[in-house]
Amino acid sequence: MALLERNDTGAVAHLTLNAPEKLNALSDGMLRALQDEFDQLAQQPHIRAVILSGAGKVFCAGHDLKEMTAGRQAEDGGKTYFKDLFDRCARMMLSIQRLPQPVIAQVHGIATAAGCQLVASCDMAIAAEGTKFGVNGVNIGLFCSTPMVALSRNIPRKQAFEMLSTGQFIPADKAESLGLINRVVPHDTLGAATADMAELVAGKLGAAVRIGKEAFYNQLQMPMAEAYDYAGDVMVENMLYRDTAEGIAAFLDKRPPDWTQ
Amino acid sequence: MALLERNDTGAVAHLTLNAPEKLNALSDGMLRALQDEFDQLAQQPHIRAVILSGAGKVFCAGHDLKEMTAGRQAEDGGKTYFKDLFDRCARMMLSIQRLPQPVIAQVHGIATAAGCQLVASCDMAIAAEGTKFGVNGVNIGLFCSTPMVALSRNIPRKQAFEMLSTGQFIPADKAESLGLINRVVPHDTLGAATADMAELVAGKLGAAVRIGKEAFYNQLQMPMAEAYDYAGDVMVENMLYRDTAEGIAAFLDKRPPDWTQ
Amino acid sequence: MALLERNDTGAVAHLTLNAPEKLNALSDGMLRALQDEFDQLAQQPHIRAVILSGAGKVFCAGHDLKEMTAGRQAEDGGKTYFKDLFDRCARMMLSIQRLPQPVIAQVHGIATAAGCQLVASCDMAIAAEGTKFGVNGVNIGLFCSTPMVALSRNIPRKQAFEMLSTGQFIPADKAESLGLINRVVPHDTLGAATADMAELVAGKLGAAVRIGKEAFYNQLQMPMAEAYDYAGDVMVENMLYRDTAEGIAAFLDKRPPDWTQ
Repeated sequence: MALLERNDTGAVAHLTLNAPEKLNALSDGMLRALQDEFDQLAQQPHIRAVILSGAGKVFCAGHDLKEMTAGRQAEDGGKTYFKDLFDRCARMMLSIQRLPQPVIAQVHGIATAAGCQLVASCDMAIAAEGTKFGVNGVNIGLFCSTPMVALSRNIPRKQAFEMLSTGQFIPADKAESLGLINRVVPHDTLGAATADMAELVAGKLGAAVRIGKEAFYNQLQMPMAEAYDYAGDVMVENMLYRDTAEGIAAFLDKRPPDWTQ
Repeated sequence: MALLERNDTGAVAHLTLNAPEKLNALSDGMLRALQDEFDQLAQQPHIRAVILSGAGKVFCAGHDLKEMTAGRQAEDGGKTYFKDLFDRCARMMLSIQRLPQPVIAQVHGIATAAGCQLVASCDMAIAAEGTKFGVNGVNIGLFCSTPMVALSRNIPRKQAFEMLSTGQFIPADKAESLGLINRVVPHDTLGAATADMAELVAGKLGAAVRIGKEAFYNQLQMPMAEAYDYAGDVMVENMLYRDTAEGIAAFLDKRPPDWTQ
Repeated sequence: MALLERNDTGAVAHLTLNAPEKLNALSDGMLRALQDEFDQLAQQPHIRAVILSGAGKVFCAGHDLKEMTAGRQAEDGGKTYFKDLFDRCARMMLSIQRLPQPVIAQVHGIATAAGCQLVASCDMAIAAEGTKFGVNGVNIGLFCSTPMVALSRNIPRKQAFEMLSTGQFIPADKAESLGLINRVVPHDTLGAATADMAELVAGKLGAAVRIGKEAFYNQLQMPMAEAYDYAGDVMVENMLYRDTAEGIAAFLDKRPPDWTQ
């Protein structure tokens, strides 16, 4: 069984973390599998949306603590290994944002530490009722400093600080009201809800979503006037796509567009 | 009939987008009319609050797609025209934030694409029950990249991404809970609600609101320590106004201030 | 009676603003007392959480307007004094974020102007039902420009702008939903609620919370990729603490950690 399963349905790729006995921990192997898959997806324009879910009882419980502990046996006490581990993990998380396709987290059970970071790093997220979210490394003496990079860009700072310093979990409805996820659905409709959202996005013009997603994260980090300059150039490029001309013409003619995608 | 109507009541200027047959589209003419009015308002310190509303069934449905399509007839396929269009549009949106007076959007019906951007660009916004908000360009193959500059600075990123990539509308109460608008009121009290808010703001010391509004957007883009340095200088300047000295003295004396404005 | 009282219970320091007859105004004396206490706390690693509350009917009503008015008697109309005052005030507010220990605001009655800034500057905040929050300087002609630096980094911008330009107060439940405070509790349980939160945080590994808190505010001001580089280094340092190794080992062994703190 692969650590990470992939099933494509039309233009939607569905990735499943598949190490349920380890609560889908982000082990070295799992990080590599995710990175490989995202690197491949970046080259597959026929895929226009990605779903990320976890097999078994939980979505993802964060790093593999046994593997990390084993890393301490190195001569430097694990320093080199840990640095490399957090670099690889950050690279994988950033690959989600850099992916041309929107990525939807399908979350159930728990999403904790780097597992919560994974939710925060996806473009959108839907969770089942009863899901709990936490960045609880502080409970064992390890503040969730890398998860907070993604978390603190999703939710207000006092609420992020509370989660990080108390280690307490929040329920799914709180995660929704704070902005960590897009919505909560009954557990037995979770798969259908993310599939619907993925289909909806996959039905849009892929080139427009790709250029828009890239611009979304880029412009967030710019001062406002600079962001407008940049976004204006993106809009011009988008306007000049053949399929966008057709999309607008079709809208004005009140007929469906004849897209090449 | 002017494309943009202006009616002043005391210190409040009320602008009305007046192209109801075009759903108040931000055509070249409408952008010019708005820019001209904001340029004038910037020179009119006797005006201390501005309301922006739309005539007819909706607030604003975004750019004028027919005009944009006509722009494609140019030799360069419209590239120069589009670039200029988005530049002019961004300049108008930024003029709202740069205006000395607070601008309140009075929103009803729908606010979509650049119309939603217009709401996001105003300092405050009140909407009628039933109003819908969307950045739905993606539905016709044109990702709302410039509207997202304003939108993503108003609401959390996952919710912004969903609106942009799915093209779906959100209702007014959701817009309120996300931060896109300040409040929702019954449709028949919308005009009264924005007039009350405008009157409230117009009753403040104009010089204090002007220096404060400018500082508000400037400091948002600074690191925190730098923001404090800057805001401290602004507070000192504000403290030295004759009318502020009078305002504080009047407060300590428990009497109404005798302001020169 | 000291202007600022301090009572330590185990690893929790409880500071009480103690000028109830002045509504705990941030006078020159109060600012100095707070700065001195924060400077001391920064050197006291045995303290692992701080509570900040106010004696009497309100938490804090902002600057001392009588003292500020007296400052106008100087030859320069108070310019030097005001600049120094806002510098000292900003330094004190930033000291809260720079403090190694988390600081919890225990808020009741009202928190207004620089008093509201004080709440916004704390890492977390709990308020009693009935508490009102405002940045109402605009009502006397003095826009709350320095308070807005903290406020606008806690709540969405349209809501911040409304509070600043209308001078109106918001109730505690609105403050919670906007992100200004973590939660609202009945008045008679306020002290117990902040004490519980402080105990919870103080029970964590102090070194982990210290390095995590510092990283929290630092990374918020960085572009995302840079934030990950930095946070990765912080995680490595945290992993190499003897007590963190023990915390992780204890977790894997399902026993309580034997920490040296």
